[in-house]
Amino acid sequence: MFAVTILGNNSAVPAFNRHPTSQVVTLDGNNYLVDCGEGTQIQMINYKIRRSKISHIFISHLHGDHYFGLIGLINSFSLLGHQQELHVFGPSPLKEIIDLQLKVADTQLCYPLHIHTIREAATLLDTDKLTVKCFRTNHRIECYGFSFAEKKQPRKLDPEKSRAYGIPASYYERLKNGEDYTHKDGKVIKNEWVTMAAAAGKTYAFCADTKYDESLLPHINGADLIYHETTYLDALRERAESRFHSTSKQAALIAQKAGVKKLLIGHFSSKYDTLEEFETEAREVFPETELALEGVCYEV
Amino acid sequence: MFAVTILGNNSAVPAFNRHPTSQVVTLDGNNYLVDCGEGTQIQMINYKIRRSKISHIFISHLHGDHYFGLIGLINSFSLLGHQQELHVFGPSPLKEIIDLQLKVADTQLCYPLHIHTIREAATLLDTDKLTVKCFRTNHRIECYGFSFAEKKQPRKLDPEKSRAYGIPASYYERLKNGEDYTHKDGKVIKNEWVTMAAAAGKTYAFCADTKYDESLLPHINGADLIYHETTYLDALRERAESRFHSTSKQAALIAQKAGVKKLLIGHFSSKYDTLEEFETEAREVFPETELALEGVCYEV
Repeated sequence: MFAVTILGNNSAVPAFNRHPTSQVVTLDGNNYLVDCGEGTQIQMINYKIRRSKISHIFISHLHGDHYFGLIGLINSFSLLGHQQELHVFGPSPLKEIIDLQLKVADTQLCYPLHIHTIREAATLLDTDKLTVKCFRTNHRIECYGFSFAEKKQPRKLDPEKSRAYGIPASYYERLKNGEDYTHKDGKVIKNEWVTMAAAAGKTYAFCADTKYDESLLPHINGADLIYHETTYLDALRERAESRFHSTSKQAALIAQKAGVKKLLIGHFSSKYDTLEEFETEAREVFPETELALEGVCYEV
Repeated sequence: MFAVTILGNNSAVPAFNRHPTSQVVTLDGNNYLVDCGEGTQIQMINYKIRRSKISHIFISHLHGDHYFGLIGLINSFSLLGHQQELHVFGPSPLKEIIDLQLKVADTQLCYPLHIHTIREAATLLDTDKLTVKCFRTNHRIECYGFSFAEKKQPRKLDPEKSRAYGIPASYYERLKNGEDYTHKDGKVIKNEWVTMAAAAGKTYAFCADTKYDESLLPHINGADLIYHETTYLDALRERAESRFHSTSKQAALIAQKAGVKKLLIGHFSSKYDTLEEFETEAREVFPETELALEGVCYEV
C-alpha cells in the first residue's frame, strides 16, 4: 500500500488537540517521515507508527513547527536500540543544530546518522520502488516540498500460459519487463499474451509551507494525491500573502491547475477551532479535497 | 498556595503515556517552570497551566529529556503574544543552541528573552516572596538542582488590639516586622501582644538527575518537600550507579538523611510499565514518599 498518515495538521503552535506538522508516507512496509514538529514521537506512539521502519526523514524547512521534534526522535532511536542507518534530508544548518545538541549531551548514537543538506531541487532518494525529489516552495525562509513517485512495477506473468506457449522459465524476467519471446522456428509469442500490465506507479507530493505560487505546478502535475497547506480561510488572504502562506481556495486552485486527482489540506492556523469551513471553501474550487486529519491514513 | 505540578515523570524516551521531565512550581499565582522536555507546552494545555504566568524557567542540564521542549515554548510564547520578560536559567551552551534556532528561523520574539548561564551553585532569583538557588548534582554531564525557599512572611497584626494599646497606625509596619512599641511615658507594648507569627516559609527542592550523593544534603536539609529521581528499582542499582542515576531506595535514603518532611519520586525508566514498586521500595526507607504523577499538584 502507498499511503500517507497525518501526525500533525496544525501550524505554529499546538491548539485544539492539533499538533505541528508531521506525516508518515508508507510504501511497501517502509515508513518515510516528512517533517517532525514537536511531539512527533509521541504521536507515533499514539497512532502505532512503527519507528523501526523509518530510515529516511525529510525536513521541509527550519521553522520550529516542522522540525523541533527531530532531535528527540534521533535521540530516542538510539535509546531504543535502533540499528539501521538513518538518513535525514533538510536545509542548512540543520546538521549544525543536531550535531551541537548531540555534542552537548555527550551522546553517542548507536546507529549511523547521515544528515544531508538540501540546497536546490534534486533527486534525494532512488530505490527500486520509489523516487523522492525535492522542489523549492515560496516561503519566508528556504523551504522545500517533496514528491514521492512509486516506480512502475514489472508486468504480471501468467506462468500457466507461458508454459503452454513453451517459453522457458529462464526467460520469465524478460517477459516481466515487457519483451516478446521468439521460438527457434521464428514464431513470436507476444508479451501481452502471457503477461498483464501492473498498475502504473502513483505519486504523492507534499507542498510544505508556501504562498500561492504556480512555479510549483511542474513538480506536482498529474499527481494522484497532493498535500497543500491552507493556513487561512479566504477572508484572510492578505494575511496569508504577507506571511507566505496559502488559503484554502489557493490550495484548491493549485490542485486544479496541476490536474491532480485528490487534494489534502492542512497546516491550519490556531485561530480556527473548527475546520469544516476549510473543506467547504476548497471544494468550491476543487471538489476532490479532504481535510488532513490527525491519525487518519489516506491512500495515494 | 505553594505547590508543584508534575508535567512529565519519565526518563529518556516517552513511554506508557509518561512524558519527559517538566514541573511547574506555583507560588502566589506565579508559575516557575523546572525543566522542559519535549511536549511540555502540550502538557501545559492538557493540565490547564497558564503559560502567561510563567516568567522564569530553570533547566537542570542539557540531556534532551530535560530541555528539548524549551525552544518550542519560547517560540509559542511569541506567537501567542507574550509580553513580559522571560528569564531562562541553564548550563552552557543552552543560550547558543536557542539563539541558533531562533536565528535560522528568522524569528523576532515579541518579548524580551534573557538566557542566563549557570556555572556554579548560586542564588538565581530573590524576590520578596521567594529565593531560588541552584546546586550541583552528580550526573554524567554538568547538572543542577534547584531549591525554592518561600520567604517568611511579616507577622499578622491585630488592629483592634493595637488601637486599644494606643499604638499609632504609622507604626503598624514596624509591628509586622516584630518590633515592640514604647509609649512616651516609657511603657512598652510587647510585639506579641498585638501580632501573631505568620507561618514559616516553606522550601521545595528539585534534585534533578543524580546518582546517590550526600553532598546534596546541605542544599535540601529540612525541606518541606523534595523531588528526587528514581530511574531504577533497587535490583538495578549497579546500572543506576554506572549511568549516574538513583534507585528508589537511594532517593529515600537522601530524604531520610536530609530530614525532609516529604519525598516525591520520578524520572522513571521506560523499562517499567507500572510504578507501584518504586513507591513500595522507597517507603521501606522513608514512609513519607509519593510517586510524582503527571497532572497531579502536590502542595509543599
